[in-house]
Amino acid sequence: MIVRPHQHWFRRLFVWHGSVLSEILFRLSLNLAMSVVAILCFQWYEALGVKLTLAPFSLLGVAIAIFLGFRNSVSYARFTEARVLWGSLLIVNRSLLRQVKSILPQRPELAQEFAALLIAFSYCLKHQLRGTSMREDLARLLPNHDLKSLESSASPCNRILLLIGQWLGERRQAGEVSDILFQSVDQNINQLSSVLAGCERISNTPIPFAYSLIVHRTVYLFCSLLPFALVPDLHYMTPLVSVFISYTFISLDALAEELEDPFGTAPNDLPLNAMCNVIEINLREMNDETNLPQRLRPDKQFQLN
Amino acid sequence: MIVRPHQHWFRRLFVWHGSVLSEILFRLSLNLAMSVVAILCFQWYEALGVKLTLAPFSLLGVAIAIFLGFRNSVSYARFTEARVLWGSLLIVNRSLLRQVKSILPQRPELAQEFAALLIAFSYCLKHQLRGTSMREDLARLLPNHDLKSLESSASPCNRILLLIGQWLGERRQAGEVSDILFQSVDQNINQLSSVLAGCERISNTPIPFAYSLIVHRTVYLFCSLLPFALVPDLHYMTPLVSVFISYTFISLDALAEELEDPFGTAPNDLPLNAMCNVIEINLREMNDETNLPQRLRPDKQFQLN
Amino acid sequence: MIVRPHQHWFRRLFVWHGSVLSEILFRLSLNLAMSVVAILCFQWYEALGVKLTLAPFSLLGVAIAIFLGFRNSVSYARFTEARVLWGSLLIVNRSLLRQVKSILPQRPELAQEFAALLIAFSYCLKHQLRGTSMREDLARLLPNHDLKSLESSASPCNRILLLIGQWLGERRQAGEVSDILFQSVDQNINQLSSVLAGCERISNTPIPFAYSLIVHRTVYLFCSLLPFALVPDLHYMTPLVSVFISYTFISLDALAEELEDPFGTAPNDLPLNAMCNVIEINLREMNDETNLPQRLRPDKQFQLN
Amino acid sequence: MIVRPHQHWFRRLFVWHGSVLSEILFRLSLNLAMSVVAILCFQWYEALGVKLTLAPFSLLGVAIAIFLGFRNSVSYARFTEARVLWGSLLIVNRSLLRQVKSILPQRPELAQEFAALLIAFSYCLKHQLRGTSMREDLARLLPNHDLKSLESSASPCNRILLLIGQWLGERRQAGEVSDILFQSVDQNINQLSSVLAGCERISNTPIPFAYSLIVHRTVYLFCSLLPFALVPDLHYMTPLVSVFISYTFISLDALAEELEDPFGTAPNDLPLNAMCNVIEINLREMNDETNLPQRLRPDKQFQLN
Amino acid sequence: MIVRPHQHWFRRLFVWHGSVLSEILFRLSLNLAMSVVAILCFQWYEALGVKLTLAPFSLLGVAIAIFLGFRNSVSYARFTEARVLWGSLLIVNRSLLRQVKSILPQRPELAQEFAALLIAFSYCLKHQLRGTSMREDLARLLPNHDLKSLESSASPCNRILLLIGQWLGERRQAGEVSDILFQSVDQNINQLSSVLAGCERISNTPIPFAYSLIVHRTVYLFCSLLPFALVPDLHYMTPLVSVFISYTFISLDALAEELEDPFGTAPNDLPLNAMCNVIEINLREMNDETNLPQRLRPDKQFQLN
Repeated sequence: MIVRPHQHWFRRLFVWHGSVLSEILFRLSLNLAMSVVAILCFQWYEALGVKLTLAPFSLLGVAIAIFLGFRNSVSYARFTEARVLWGSLLIVNRSLLRQVKSILPQRPELAQEFAALLIAFSYCLKHQLRGTSMREDLARLLPNHDLKSLESSASPCNRILLLIGQWLGERRQAGEVSDILFQSVDQNINQLSSVLAGCERISNTPIPFAYSLIVHRTVYLFCSLLPFALVPDLHYMTPLVSVFISYTFISLDALAEELEDPFGTAPNDLPLNAMCNVIEINLREMNDETNLPQRLRPDKQFQLN
Repeated sequence: MIVRPHQHWFRRLFVWHGSVLSEILFRLSLNLAMSVVAILCFQWYEALGVKLTLAPFSLLGVAIAIFLGFRNSVSYARFTEARVLWGSLLIVNRSLLRQVKSILPQRPELAQEFAALLIAFSYCLKHQLRGTSMREDLARLLPNHDLKSLESSASPCNRILLLIGQWLGERRQAGEVSDILFQSVDQNINQLSSVLAGCERISNTPIPFAYSLIVHRTVYLFCSLLPFALVPDLHYMTPLVSVFISYTFISLDALAEELEDPFGTAPNDLPLNAMCNVIEINLREMNDETNLPQRLRPDKQFQLN
Repeated sequence: MIVRPHQHWFRRLFVWHGSVLSEILFRLSLNLAMSVVAILCFQWYEALGVKLTLAPFSLLGVAIAIFLGFRNSVSYARFTEARVLWGSLLIVNRSLLRQVKSILPQRPELAQEFAALLIAFSYCLKHQLRGTSMREDLARLLPNHDLKSLESSASPCNRILLLIGQWLGERRQAGEVSDILFQSVDQNINQLSSVLAGCERISNTPIPFAYSLIVHRTVYLFCSLLPFALVPDLHYMTPLVSVFISYTFISLDALAEELEDPFGTAPNDLPLNAMCNVIEINLREMNDETNLPQRLRPDKQFQLN
Repeated sequence: MIVRPHQHWFRRLFVWHGSVLSEILFRLSLNLAMSVVAILCFQWYEALGVKLTLAPFSLLGVAIAIFLGFRNSVSYARFTEARVLWGSLLIVNRSLLRQVKSILPQRPELAQEFAALLIAFSYCLKHQLRGTSMREDLARLLPNHDLKSLESSASPCNRILLLIGQWLGERRQAGEVSDILFQSVDQNINQLSSVLAGCERISNTPIPFAYSLIVHRTVYLFCSLLPFALVPDLHYMTPLVSVFISYTFISLDALAEELEDPFGTAPNDLPLNAMCNVIEINLREMNDETNLPQRLRPDKQFQLN
Repeated sequence: MIVRPHQHWFRRLFVWHGSVLSEILFRLSLNLAMSVVAILCFQWYEALGVKLTLAPFSLLGVAIAIFLGFRNSVSYARFTEARVLWGSLLIVNRSLLRQVKSILPQRPELAQEFAALLIAFSYCLKHQLRGTSMREDLARLLPNHDLKSLESSASPCNRILLLIGQWLGERRQAGEVSDILFQSVDQNINQLSSVLAGCERISNTPIPFAYSLIVHRTVYLFCSLLPFALVPDLHYMTPLVSVFISYTFISLDALAEELEDPFGTAPNDLPLNAMCNVIEINLREMNDETNLPQRLRPDKQFQLN
């Protein structure tokens, strides 16, 4: 069982803040400073007939909350879809190996060959999504001649799928797999293709940039002007209330931005390393291999990545 | 028919409160105490020029309601998905056994063997999700040699799927099941794999922690400050209104947290025991077995678990 | 074509009210009485320094509207899903019979046998969901020996699926249906199984009870206190506005409760009788039978059930 | 390419209004009249101590906006689903004909026969959904003996599916289509069945009547009382603001009602005529027929129907 | 990997504005001018007893935010669906070619022929959706006799699917592809058909025109009247707050309109050129071709199209 991150929520609290807190803290300090400025200057600029009241900010605040709520649900949907895709990856990998093992029970060496291709696909996908080097993992898993064709390819994940398809085609040519069983296995390979293209889609198509931009900007301007609207009513309580309201809006905006790209390595992103590790252990165990890799454990910040 | 819990809503009312009420009550008492403090100290700190008004809290309250509404819908979606997955488990189990029985009508002993594997899978999944010991249930259902391979496995549920696949592969090797029918049954086994991975996903991937945290914190700070914002207008009515508003926000927040993890044993969680029981009775009955297990009945608190 | 209920909306208006109106009317009268009390006592308790203002209720009202909106969408989703499931039942029944008829065109007696099983399944599902006796309908449709096995079963609908599977298995054994066509028909039987389990899920898993409870309670307390918050501003207009606002909130809450269980016999529930009737007429007509049952017509209240 | 209606938005503006505008205009005039009454009588009834303030209407207005927003999204979902179903109809028709043509390339006369059945199904569905006479279109497309069986049927669309199934069964009997290809084509026929039942479901199951009713009533009462709540603050500006707010609420309510039944012939409904026309042209063209029907063009109001 | 547009957010900011900014700027200037008018005329028309207060605009603003939020989510759903469809196009193209290559490993010339048909389909779809000339791309990819039949066709994309189906039918006739493998490939061709019809649906069915119209109009009237409602409270701060609120509403409205039609060439639309380019490179690479087309790079405005 993957360690559930929320079992250690207390520590994660600081971890999460560790990554974004500096930015949020900076903005809240700014907001605090604005509140102090508002208190100090209030009497002076009120005398000039310049004033802000809370009523229009109330209207605007609710409008922004609605738009921010929508932005959050869109970001969260991306996060969820990414998680479902990696869940499917695990499902399909297990199903494919189970199929091959029940179709060819007396050929364990073929099942191992096949499992290695599947494991390589998962690592390859992880590295492609994170933009890291896949060389080491692939070298560990695949024979040399396959490696070369992958290295020269612009889309190595898709190349591995092609290798899997070739492997299956060879089984069919050799008469080891009938057309019907070929069809069954092939349908699951199609699903690997769906997972790949789904992840590429999420990774390549951000939320329309103008949307994030409008919400982002509006949140920041709103929080900057808020102290001046609060000060006529609240005087010395302005900093407390202003920072509180800003915290709610700014941290939700920051989280939405973090969730928008679920394949990164920030604390709230998907732990792709741990997921590849689980897939590898699962498939190797199905082949009754004994030298399983170490299961990844959360680090000192109780964080998987 | 599973006893519908809401037929006994009156009693469940207290049951639910039995589990979370202590926490909610504690927080509401705290809120009540804050209200009394606010009433007592109001004149003193108003004289110091410190005051809070309701207007900014009104803005913030609506914003929090929107975010809390989103958090609720996300938690509820997890609960619903978990329920749908267990519903699929029942569907697929029935379909698999029906398929095997209509393909091999003259081999009831095979159908019994197969049903035992399916039932074992359900119990195994329940125990994995709740982190309880699956030993007793599996020992009751599976032959010894299967048990051993399961005990040494890191993911016993997936191991059972492998056993089911092997069983099917053996039928095919023996010529009892043609390739085409193998394909039909195999597709349903793939769905068992989907159910397994779906449950694992929900169980291992909580709602991004920062999200719960921000909403949680904001709700609590909001409720703590509310009495001070209400007291200038409401005076002696402050405790009533403050506790009422806090009740709405705090109890929805508490419920969202409870629904977020639907596989627990709290009153609003899924009754996995009863569901496994139904699956076992259903499958055994399809095999015309007569020594069916007792149907689980709600306990004295009208509670299934 | 099923008679569209909204063609007679005027009458339905009173029908719907006929079922829930008494409760809503009672609560609105209570609200009216509270308004009168508020008007009468206002000066007395205002003199005591006790007062309620609208501002906190405005905040609370919007929050409740958001939560009530969510509860409504959840209830409506259950209603819709139930409707889609019964729509699928019609689809799959038609498709199954069409398949059997195009595979075995020269065996009309088999198609009739098969259609009877399908029709029996629909009626059985209706009776199971409503908790009514299925004996009469099944006796009309099925041969005696099948009836007995159904009566002793704890889940007769699933038993009928087993009979359908057996029927199909017999066709395959007799060489009348090839493995490939068996697979095609079998996939549709799997869908019947999905419909069954989907309906059971909706029927057995209400919206988490605590959720309905919190919203329900909050709506009622809100409406009870509302007159006291309105009276300082509105005086004699308090009853009108208070009853109007209460009507909006209370009737939506009542409707959400009614839609939550779509298989009942209340006016807004699904007309399962009419749906079974349509399925029976459709299937019999496909077999060119002439003694079709009477199509169900709405009753005097223009109500199907 | 179907002419995009929004290319001519200016004219459509008046068209849409042409259909619902009379009703909306009537209600807005009523609202205007109420505003004038409110201005004229304000001093008189204020002297009596009767007054309405905006605060409770503000609360109610936001609540109604939330409920109206939900009603709109439900109506729009029905419209979208209806559109997706008709899109599927086009997809499946093309796929079916493509399958038949690639399976039986040297039998163009069979492909024409088959295409005629598919086209007839689309027209039949359109007429059933709109309650118009399908006689003329069917007579144009189908041979006489089929026509008769359709005319005596209570669900002619389903009857055509049965004919399509028979046609396919005959090909299989004649050995022109193997069991496997039969299965492929049959799956697509199942999808036609899904489209049929999906359209019937939308057409026969309106949004629960009580829901529309509550929202409808509340919107109207709200708009009627609004002038009296606005007049204390706005005096002579009451008519402008009151009509503006009423326009927003009333027109969205009217649109929701129009979208709820997407199969009508109102300007915002689906252009079923044009869609049938596209399907017919597409299928005939695939068969290299030359006497294609005229493509339907928008009328003078730039309106398809 | 497609260049992620948000890596260059700063420049895109101006790009996006480049396309819609002129319109938004114009409207905001108008709003600014209205604010100045409001400040200048305030004392004059207040003396006449004419005034606007913020309270009704607050109510209206929240209502509009709710409706605008719905409109945004509908537009965004269209954008997302369009993106998913083009993602599927990539998936299915890869899967189809992988299938053909693993079924016919020793026939690379057939795989090239097939790949050319698939690539042509993607380009054809792009040109159809954008209304541009497909002649050049098709001439580059397809043999002459196919070109002719496409040019005379009213729906060339569908015609290419027919050619793909014929190609597959010929393989089956020649005994190179068994019925079962024909079925597997055919299912993926059905999915190409779904992508085609899905894109046509989005392109041909805008959001019901009345909906955009009502929201659009209401936003504009709201922003025009807003300065007059703000001026009594804010005096000289009116322009700042009025332009800020208007910016939020107007830019979200403008974005919703841009996303509504995702197949255009505006900066927030889908980069169909780049997508076709990726598909072509992917498929050619799978065939080990060496003269791959240049990968499209973002232009000087960091913009793909």
